[in-house]
Amino acid sequence: MKTIHSTQNSFVKQLKKLHKKKYRDQMSQFLIEGPHLFAEALSAGQVMPYLLVEEDKLQTFQPPKDSEVIICSEDVIRTLSQTESPQGIIAVCHILKPPMTDILQSNCSLALLDDIQDPGNLGTLIRTAEVLGMTAVVLGKHCADMYNSKAVRATQGALFHLPVIRDDLNGLVNKLAQANVPIFATAMDGLPLEKVQIERKYAVVFGNEGRGIDEHLLSAANERISIPMAGKTESLNVTVAAGIVMYGLQAKKNG
Amino acid sequence: MKTIHSTQNSFVKQLKKLHKKKYRDQMSQFLIEGPHLFAEALSAGQVMPYLLVEEDKLQTFQPPKDSEVIICSEDVIRTLSQTESPQGIIAVCHILKPPMTDILQSNCSLALLDDIQDPGNLGTLIRTAEVLGMTAVVLGKHCADMYNSKAVRATQGALFHLPVIRDDLNGLVNKLAQANVPIFATAMDGLPLEKVQIERKYAVVFGNEGRGIDEHLLSAANERISIPMAGKTESLNVTVAAGIVMYGLQAKKNG
Repeated sequence: MKTIHSTQNSFVKQLKKLHKKKYRDQMSQFLIEGPHLFAEALSAGQVMPYLLVEEDKLQTFQPPKDSEVIICSEDVIRTLSQTESPQGIIAVCHILKPPMTDILQSNCSLALLDDIQDPGNLGTLIRTAEVLGMTAVVLGKHCADMYNSKAVRATQGALFHLPVIRDDLNGLVNKLAQANVPIFATAMDGLPLEKVQIERKYAVVFGNEGRGIDEHLLSAANERISIPMAGKTESLNVTVAAGIVMYGLQAKKNG
Repeated sequence: MKTIHSTQNSFVKQLKKLHKKKYRDQMSQFLIEGPHLFAEALSAGQVMPYLLVEEDKLQTFQPPKDSEVIICSEDVIRTLSQTESPQGIIAVCHILKPPMTDILQSNCSLALLDDIQDPGNLGTLIRTAEVLGMTAVVLGKHCADMYNSKAVRATQGALFHLPVIRDDLNGLVNKLAQANVPIFATAMDGLPLEKVQIERKYAVVFGNEGRGIDEHLLSAANERISIPMAGKTESLNVTVAAGIVMYGLQAKKNG
C-alpha cells in the first residue's frame, strides 16, 4: 500500500488544487472528508479513485474495490482538509453529470435554485430536497459551486442520493412548459402555500438570498406561492423558506 | 454632541467587553450593528442608551429620543464591530427579561429550544418563530447566548418583536402540563406532521443539533411528531426541520 508522509509530495499538491473550483472543473473531481460523507458516498456507489487515510484509522474503513488506498500522515490529511478538526479520511470523488433528459420524468418534483450564493445554504437546500423526496435539484448558472467543501459538508451526503444538475434556468423553464410541468415560484404576494393545488409533477424555483428570484423566471412561473407571514420580520432564511415550501408541496402531492 | 476618535478611549474599551457573554450578563446590555437591526430595534421601541455613528452616516439615521448619540471614527466603529464590513452604526441595547407568566396566555404557540449550540442556528430559529407567528421562544439553560453577535444578526431583528425567555425547560414543561398546554416534541418515530390535531394553544420542543431532545423532555411531551422522510439522508438541518414543524402546526391552528 502506498504511503505519503510529506505535505510537499507532488500528488498531495495536485489534490490540494481541488480546493479551488477552477481545478475541480478542470479535473472533474472533488474532495470529501470524514467517515460520514465517505459512508454516504460508498452507499450510493459513488466512484472514488483515491482514498487517503491515516494509518491508525485504516481498520475502521472498508474501502471500495476500485479505490486506491493511500496511507497518509496526519500532516498530509490536515493539509488536504478544509475543516478545523480533520477526521483522518479524505476521498477523491468524480464529478458526475446526470443527463437533463432523465429528470423530466412523469412524476418529477424539481427544485430550481436561482443564484444561491452561500455554499452552506446551497448544501442545506440539496440536503432538504433529498430528505423531502424531491426527484432532482437544478442549479442556475450563477449558483455557488456545490463541490465547494462547505457546500458538500452541508449536504450531509445528500448530493450522492439525488441528481443535482447545473443548467440555464431560463432555457429549462421553456422545456418544462413544453412538457406541461407546472412551475411554482415563491414570492411575497403569492397564493398561500396551504391553498396551492398540485398535480403529479411540478417544479419550484427558489431565489437569491437577498434579491429573490430573477424577474424573467418569476414571470415564467404558472403560480406564485407564499408562506403566510404572521410576524413583523420581513422574511425567512432561504433554506427555511424552501424547506417549508417543499414540505408543503410534497405533502400535497403525496397526500 | 460627544465624539470619540480613539480606539483606546475608556468607554470604547468598556463597550468592547460586550463582545463577551460574561460582560453582557453583568452589564445587562448587548450591541447591535447596522441600519437594518437599528431600524428593527427602533420600530419595536427597544431602549438604546447609546448610539455610535460615523459622522458621514449621521444624517441617514433618526436617533431615538432617549439615546445619547456619539460620533465615532471609522476605527472606533471597526473595533466595536464583529462583522467583516461594519456599516457605520452600532447601538447599545438593554437586555430585557420578559416575565414567564405572560407567555402562558390562552392562545399561546410556544417554541422551546433545548440546547441549540450554534448561535447562527439560534438566531435563525428565533427569526422563523417570529415570522410564523409563534407567541414566544423559550431557551433552555444550555442554549447558546442569543445576544452573541452572530445570533443577533441571524434573527434579522426578530428578537425585538417577540418575547425570548431563558428558563429551565424541565420546570417549564411541568407548568405547561398544569396549564393544560399540550407539548409536542419532534422525534424520528412520531406521528406524521400532517396528521397532528391541534388545539388553540400548544408548545413544541426542538433539540440539540446532534443529540436531539433531552430524554426527560421527550418523555414529558404529549405527542411525538415527525416530518415524513422520503430520502436516504438521515435528517434535516435543525432550523429547516423546526421551520417546517412550526409552519405545519401554525397552519393547523389558524386554518
